[in-house]
Amino acid sequence: MKKTALIMAGGRGERFWPKSRKNLPKQFLSLTDDGRTMIQLTVERILPLIDMEDIYISTNKAYRDLVAAQLPEIPPENILCEPVGRNTAPCIGLAAVHVDRKYEEALMVVLPSDHLIKYHKMFLHTLRDACSIAERDSNLVTIGITPDYPETGYGYIKFRPEESDGNAYAVDCFVEKPSLQTAKEYLETEEYLWNSGMFIWKASTILQNIRQILPDLYSGLMKISEAVGTEAQEMVLEKEFPRLQAVSIDYGIMEKAEHIYILPGAFGWDDVGSWLAVERIQKSNECGNVVTGNIITIHSKNNIIQGGSKLIAAVGLEDLIIVDTEDATLICDKSSTPDIKMVLENLKICNRDEYL
Amino acid sequence: MKKTALIMAGGRGERFWPKSRKNLPKQFLSLTDDGRTMIQLTVERILPLIDMEDIYISTNKAYRDLVAAQLPEIPPENILCEPVGRNTAPCIGLAAVHVDRKYEEALMVVLPSDHLIKYHKMFLHTLRDACSIAERDSNLVTIGITPDYPETGYGYIKFRPEESDGNAYAVDCFVEKPSLQTAKEYLETEEYLWNSGMFIWKASTILQNIRQILPDLYSGLMKISEAVGTEAQEMVLEKEFPRLQAVSIDYGIMEKAEHIYILPGAFGWDDVGSWLAVERIQKSNECGNVVTGNIITIHSKNNIIQGGSKLIAAVGLEDLIIVDTEDATLICDKSSTPDIKMVLENLKICNRDEYL
Repeated sequence: MKKTALIMAGGRGERFWPKSRKNLPKQFLSLTDDGRTMIQLTVERILPLIDMEDIYISTNKAYRDLVAAQLPEIPPENILCEPVGRNTAPCIGLAAVHVDRKYEEALMVVLPSDHLIKYHKMFLHTLRDACSIAERDSNLVTIGITPDYPETGYGYIKFRPEESDGNAYAVDCFVEKPSLQTAKEYLETEEYLWNSGMFIWKASTILQNIRQILPDLYSGLMKISEAVGTEAQEMVLEKEFPRLQAVSIDYGIMEKAEHIYILPGAFGWDDVGSWLAVERIQKSNECGNVVTGNIITIHSKNNIIQGGSKLIAAVGLEDLIIVDTEDATLICDKSSTPDIKMVLENLKICNRDEYL
Repeated sequence: MKKTALIMAGGRGERFWPKSRKNLPKQFLSLTDDGRTMIQLTVERILPLIDMEDIYISTNKAYRDLVAAQLPEIPPENILCEPVGRNTAPCIGLAAVHVDRKYEEALMVVLPSDHLIKYHKMFLHTLRDACSIAERDSNLVTIGITPDYPETGYGYIKFRPEESDGNAYAVDCFVEKPSLQTAKEYLETEEYLWNSGMFIWKASTILQNIRQILPDLYSGLMKISEAVGTEAQEMVLEKEFPRLQAVSIDYGIMEKAEHIYILPGAFGWDDVGSWLAVERIQKSNECGNVVTGNIITIHSKNNIIQGGSKLIAAVGLEDLIIVDTEDATLICDKSSTPDIKMVLENLKICNRDEYL
């Protein structure tokens, strides 16, 4: 069956400030050694499975030019621009509408644009497995990540170990970010996986589910669908999309739907959630410093230093994150990364939009 | 008696990198809250005692324009430019030659250009006392600072408590930077003061001492003296000055001369020896951060942050020194300030002169 992909790239992540900005979110940044951006890596990764012309990018219209510049081979009509962000259910619904109009029957692989994967072939193997399950009947398939530790920043998915179909398990339920205690209990049961935000289904299947579970969203999508390919397309989207119910696909559909399967992914997944991730994804030198740019380190260890052409001299430092950009420099203790958002709050309160 | 001053401003101090550079040494920087540079403050401080036209600035010829720009009221002929640095004895000798030619009899107050003083009136009072002693006979007078703690980075001067003349004591000897143990012993004797590098004497007295103790230096100075005011002045200086013996006034003269008196100074002296001094001389906020520039601090305390217009966000930091300049940023733990010189060594080895 025809395979298409939707890469969701509307996010605004603030956790990579000052490199990420309102007009340059994380998915458009290069955070690895090789210089390619997160979204470029995401596209490249699936090319053995999905043709370039069948890859859709959903994003905020403010990022259309960024997407086009970073992914010049994606057909311009495949860049689906949301007039406003309405969470993932409308986003995925809109893409399903486009796929459904283009192909009689086609699979959709839904992927975040800002995660990293270490073992590409293993990832593709899992995706192929997921596609075969999604082709059959009206299955909704997701990929779960086997937890390394009781992370409290992710959603979890409970599966039924006794109900398996090949490598896949029947999903029992989707659950929100747990407390540490709850997360520990999840791991002990061996029945929970991390929610990776990757989904595989037929366009017709997800639309069918939206029709049943979120009928208002469905009728809004149908209005948009009728205008696709006509002169009114843009205008109708501008009018109807903001009226769609802002709800996540997890909460809006997956927690209520049936026939959901999960495939455990063991391909070295990283959600690159904060500057600390740079240590996992870039090579460190013999002192444990991960450095990019024009850096001199003296008696310094285990620091993350991201600079450019400006000289940064680090003397006697340990466990710091230093990020230098044209107009702003962040210096943050590794244990304080959650407080970076307080810098952004401070900037917002003071109307210093130029730094956001 | 006519009072003149020599402010020595040839130093190249590297301890304020990256603000201080080869072409902008510490004495030309502003390190206080009020924006005036160290040398400007030094001149202002003595104006109640000495006329502007009687203030001489000795410096390297590379800094002539900096001196002229920062001190436009100093007569240009009072800027004494050394073709090369030959330490303090030739520097002071050259100024003495100029003063001696200008006035039949005059006092010289010799001052470093890069120290700070808190109590100006008290300082002037001490200088006046010093001048009265230096006027009489052929006395050499210096000002000593009562030690707060056994500093190992300064020279010390031993005096004879039983031989006093007003507030002054006879000097027993000048000693080099001691070990910590020796410094502790010095403090216990109560007979040692810190060497402040401030001297007061008649121009004729210091020249007389140079003639007796360093005859070669004297004859070189006399060659230069003969040319002062003639067309050959510059040429003779260029030729003779580099040949003068490179020796400090302390080692070359003071350790060998007689009739030396010391006045204890209690006027809040600070040699501003490293970035740590900024904490003593600028106001800190309620978290103990001393900040200049466009700074946001979150959960950060006791840091010294010197920036400009670029935004610096400090998150979860403690006891760091952060100095941002146009082309280089230093981030240094407070306990590691002596290692800043290793950054400079590294830059020298790599021929990265643009940062020196």
